[in-house]
Amino acid sequence: MNYPNKINREYHKTISYANRGMDLENIINDTNEYLLSKDIALIYKKPTPIGVVKVNYENNKQIIEKAYFASPSTLDYNGLYKGKYIEFDAKNTESKTSFPLSNVHEHQIKHIRNVIKHDGIVFLIIRINGICYLLNGPDFISFIDNNTRKSIPYDYIKEFGYELEYNYTKGLNYLKYVDIIGGYKNEEN
Amino acid sequence: MNYPNKINREYHKTISYANRGMDLENIINDTNEYLLSKDIALIYKKPTPIGVVKVNYENNKQIIEKAYFASPSTLDYNGLYKGKYIEFDAKNTESKTSFPLSNVHEHQIKHIRNVIKHDGIVFLIIRINGICYLLNGPDFISFIDNNTRKSIPYDYIKEFGYELEYNYTKGLNYLKYVDIIGGYKNEEN
Repeated sequence: MNYPNKINREYHKTISYANRGMDLENIINDTNEYLLSKDIALIYKKPTPIGVVKVNYENNKQIIEKAYFASPSTLDYNGLYKGKYIEFDAKNTESKTSFPLSNVHEHQIKHIRNVIKHDGIVFLIIRINGICYLLNGPDFISFIDNNTRKSIPYDYIKEFGYELEYNYTKGLNYLKYVDIIGGYKNEEN
Repeated sequence: MNYPNKINREYHKTISYANRGMDLENIINDTNEYLLSKDIALIYKKPTPIGVVKVNYENNKQIIEKAYFASPSTLDYNGLYKGKYIEFDAKNTESKTSFPLSNVHEHQIKHIRNVIKHDGIVFLIIRINGICYLLNGPDFISFIDNNTRKSIPYDYIKEFGYELEYNYTKGLNYLKYVDIIGGYKNEEN
């Protein structure tokens, strides 16, 4: 084969999940189920907050007859890995050149700042151009604090983010980079 | 005053929250709001999981027209305190002599074991006879593993649990005992 390695790798990654249109949320959920089943980490998706308006009873069971989806003030996933608190959100963008900040609510940005302040591990998993990146919370906040742009350029994500790999059995290898941003390597040495 | 200190303290505690019938969930929520506002800890109640059956659109907004409450497989509250993962549930019991284990689902017990295994801090806040106790996860699991009883006697809770105090402004002082069970004192020394 004459293709350079880089192209080959991109190609394999692309067919492995991105272009097959697998839903990012499903990929993350499958990954977390794998991590739970192998006793590696406990990461759960928080239920979507719902405002219940009307409840009735059917055969002694509560049935919700009117409710609406509320917007979350935290991120979608949180849990426990090696004793530490982890929280993240997974965002897909159709744009090929940047990640629009409108994808993250104002109170979620405030929450990310809070998690950093309290020594938690917080990040975004951003899928752009069919590739998933882990963007560490401090790098995300740093962009917001130092730019007036309403979207994060792809180049920034490539420079500061960690490109994730997907495996059919193990899912997305995001914990590999949590080990790095959480400083576990330093602790072990 | 001729009352011994102990009785006086109990009396104050009792009128302060228990006998006024304040809902335990509200007390915990107020406490967590206080902790958030003072930048002490980030603890949130997870939304109740809901199975959505039917959704319709009204004025371009999604309205849930049929749904049901699902039972949670984790505990109600989790969050971040001093970099560590914390998870707990608050349980009220009407029984004066014991805490019925039927209050905790089988998959929640499994989850508590998991959190312990992964070095998280996990506990129950149990209100019995109008007094709130923090019962550390390992003490809760130890009872289950070493007894065939379907309820935890009040005496066990008094012996192994930490009696909590309530303050109108600060709420329940459960973090005081998280500092102890989480071993922060040792780290600081």
